[in-house]
Amino acid sequence: MASHGQKGLPPADEPGQPPNLTTSALADKAHAMSLEQKITPFEVSGGVDESGKLLPVDYEKLTRQFGATQISPQLLERFEKVTGKKPHRFMRRGIVFSHRDLDKILDRYEKGEPFYLYTGRGPSSDSMHVGHSIPFEFTKFLQDTFECPLVIQLTDDEKFMHSEKITIDDTGRFSRENAKDIIAIGFDPAKTFIFSDYDYMGGPFYKNVTAMAKRITMNQIEGTFGFNGSNNVGEFFFCAIQSAPAFATSFPHIFGENTNKVRSIPCLIPCAIDQDPYFRQCRDNAEKMKFKKPSIIHSVFLPALQGPGSKMSSSVDSSAIFLTDTPNQIKNKINRYAFSGGQDTAEKQRELGGDTKQDVPFQYLTFFLEDDDELARIKKAYESGEMMTGEIKQICIKHLQEYVATFQARRKEVTEAVRENFVERKKLEYKGNPNPKTA
Amino acid sequence: MASHGQKGLPPADEPGQPPNLTTSALADKAHAMSLEQKITPFEVSGGVDESGKLLPVDYEKLTRQFGATQISPQLLERFEKVTGKKPHRFMRRGIVFSHRDLDKILDRYEKGEPFYLYTGRGPSSDSMHVGHSIPFEFTKFLQDTFECPLVIQLTDDEKFMHSEKITIDDTGRFSRENAKDIIAIGFDPAKTFIFSDYDYMGGPFYKNVTAMAKRITMNQIEGTFGFNGSNNVGEFFFCAIQSAPAFATSFPHIFGENTNKVRSIPCLIPCAIDQDPYFRQCRDNAEKMKFKKPSIIHSVFLPALQGPGSKMSSSVDSSAIFLTDTPNQIKNKINRYAFSGGQDTAEKQRELGGDTKQDVPFQYLTFFLEDDDELARIKKAYESGEMMTGEIKQICIKHLQEYVATFQARRKEVTEAVRENFVERKKLEYKGNPNPKTA
Repeated sequence: MASHGQKGLPPADEPGQPPNLTTSALADKAHAMSLEQKITPFEVSGGVDESGKLLPVDYEKLTRQFGATQISPQLLERFEKVTGKKPHRFMRRGIVFSHRDLDKILDRYEKGEPFYLYTGRGPSSDSMHVGHSIPFEFTKFLQDTFECPLVIQLTDDEKFMHSEKITIDDTGRFSRENAKDIIAIGFDPAKTFIFSDYDYMGGPFYKNVTAMAKRITMNQIEGTFGFNGSNNVGEFFFCAIQSAPAFATSFPHIFGENTNKVRSIPCLIPCAIDQDPYFRQCRDNAEKMKFKKPSIIHSVFLPALQGPGSKMSSSVDSSAIFLTDTPNQIKNKINRYAFSGGQDTAEKQRELGGDTKQDVPFQYLTFFLEDDDELARIKKAYESGEMMTGEIKQICIKHLQEYVATFQARRKEVTEAVRENFVERKKLEYKGNPNPKTA
Repeated sequence: MASHGQKGLPPADEPGQPPNLTTSALADKAHAMSLEQKITPFEVSGGVDESGKLLPVDYEKLTRQFGATQISPQLLERFEKVTGKKPHRFMRRGIVFSHRDLDKILDRYEKGEPFYLYTGRGPSSDSMHVGHSIPFEFTKFLQDTFECPLVIQLTDDEKFMHSEKITIDDTGRFSRENAKDIIAIGFDPAKTFIFSDYDYMGGPFYKNVTAMAKRITMNQIEGTFGFNGSNNVGEFFFCAIQSAPAFATSFPHIFGENTNKVRSIPCLIPCAIDQDPYFRQCRDNAEKMKFKKPSIIHSVFLPALQGPGSKMSSSVDSSAIFLTDTPNQIKNKINRYAFSGGQDTAEKQRELGGDTKQDVPFQYLTFFLEDDDELARIKKAYESGEMMTGEIKQICIKHLQEYVATFQARRKEVTEAVRENFVERKKLEYKGNPNPKTA
């Protein structure tokens, strides 16, 4: 994937939050190109208004533009009824906010028909930050809920072809390290296959790549991804490489040989909204290729420490909480860098209260604090001026320290042998598996 | 390869012969695009003159346009001196007529430095004709001469992505059958590796594909190959797939693991001139990628039975002599269809003589008759009117029957086990092999 997840891409916490490009870069882009917002896997811009003010990404508008569907309270109710599980806090809070054909996956789950999950990451560095972990946390929830197979694509080939600096050897190292980080999220080794394109390219996967490539013209990519003639042919071709894992026949060791039955197994793709263009393309062609269309479920971006209008970056330490940060580093980063929606003085804060929509510590709590009542209590206290900036930062620090410490504890257990178990081309064990391991 | 060889592509026997598109199709193209000749892997047109008359491909001009070098008598002399072998009749007769850095390969041969041969075929059908066998005959001569490794790429992926009708399954069948036909040309199994892209894609080969793809922009391909925005992304990307076998690190089972030493092993690519754009692109980037530039040696096309201005096609039985044709079919095709450069009546023929430049039977003899003196005798007799049309056809029939019968006898011996030996990823045995099989 260019990355199903956070990458170095503009985070924004929810509909209404500005994108995370630096202000001037975004303004340049918006002025140079249009006043409209533009979201592709390679560019996220909310545009500017007539006075030149940067606009937040309008996720609702985006959903309409992309032709996707907002996740409704009714769909959440149905999710809970069908799965017997309370929707994830990301779903309850509009962090996972839109979808395509999620209802069809629920239909299949209800009938006991097979499907699988597909997500991925572009391994552009060996240091993942908490923003990267968001889509994987949600994917883990879906795997736990559906007890279905999961394939995770590491798009080392795309990272190499798209980057000026990254070598093929770099991507190999990044893929291995990132795989370990992803594993530490807590995926079930019996149900999960992690592959890098450089390792897995070939065989039925490559056949599906070419079958998709044959249906994508240059013009379509230029329009959809904002490329032009100076982009390299690998960048154009990659669209097909990201589509192919959406077809079950790409994984004969999981689903068996290419038959009509295997071709009819769809996947559900949890991804950040910027990845939607890849899968729209995939859906446009899937049925002509005699596959089922993949279903998709979209998330928003986690904002950078600098808040709305700033960019979270793997290469800027102060922009993000990294999964390798110590408790002290986390504390210092939140205290020093986290953009505050509070007032300048304690007095003013008591009088006017804080703006939770602008406040990065509060935004992070919407991602990381599970307890809805507690979150509501904090929101109310902060907005009313009862809670000070320092206090909400302390709560945020505590929860992030816990999250990262728990992650690090699991990460320590991920040895090379554990990684090999996930990348091995083995049969998987899952609900309704037509190819049980013991067969 | 789009095909290193004959494909369904316009044959023309030597500088001065018209291309083999049907007259009207060529005229349409020429008028629509320009009066200039245009040669790409997907289009061969000699253009039209001011009166609208179709022009033959001007190979000399092409050599200059492409920036290649005509093979000089001095280079042929050096070839003979260095290898101790008389240059192949294709070289002596201008059928193999131009090159890039062939002299550097001779230098290496002289010094005992390693290099290899690389050629290929686009498996677009399971019936190969004699035109297809020409570049392989020449490649066999080079292998016998240099006693070096040879890799043969079957570009089933490209054939699928470029064709509207061919399925992936078709290309698999074509690849297997074509491999057997190629083997029957007489290659040395200890020195030859035949691979199809669908079988071999992945690993170090795929890494080289992406390394090349990263250096090729869309604009470069549009210009060089005559593509536009309605071509699919696979067609654009394929350029990198045809380049990658020119790097020895694509074949670790032959040359060993990726080291500077392996990176410095160049190849010599025998191919039809229309394939030059792929390898020009490869040469432009090779040294930046820390590889040696491949050397290239170009051949002209074998004309179709209908002669200058007509198109040899695998799907038009009467246009070509197929490697599966019976002696009787060959006789009938030459007698019925072979375009004659002779006069309308025996009387006129005796008076004016035949035109060997237009005469397909004579042209075929330049390809298939080894004896230079005999060829000169026939030329003289036919041009002087001493030899009749029927007579030269009989000579041509005899030589083609012999060629095809000999091929078919060898082809019978090519069992599935023999094919497997050629496609196996085994070490090869050759002069100066740094990785002998016994190691």
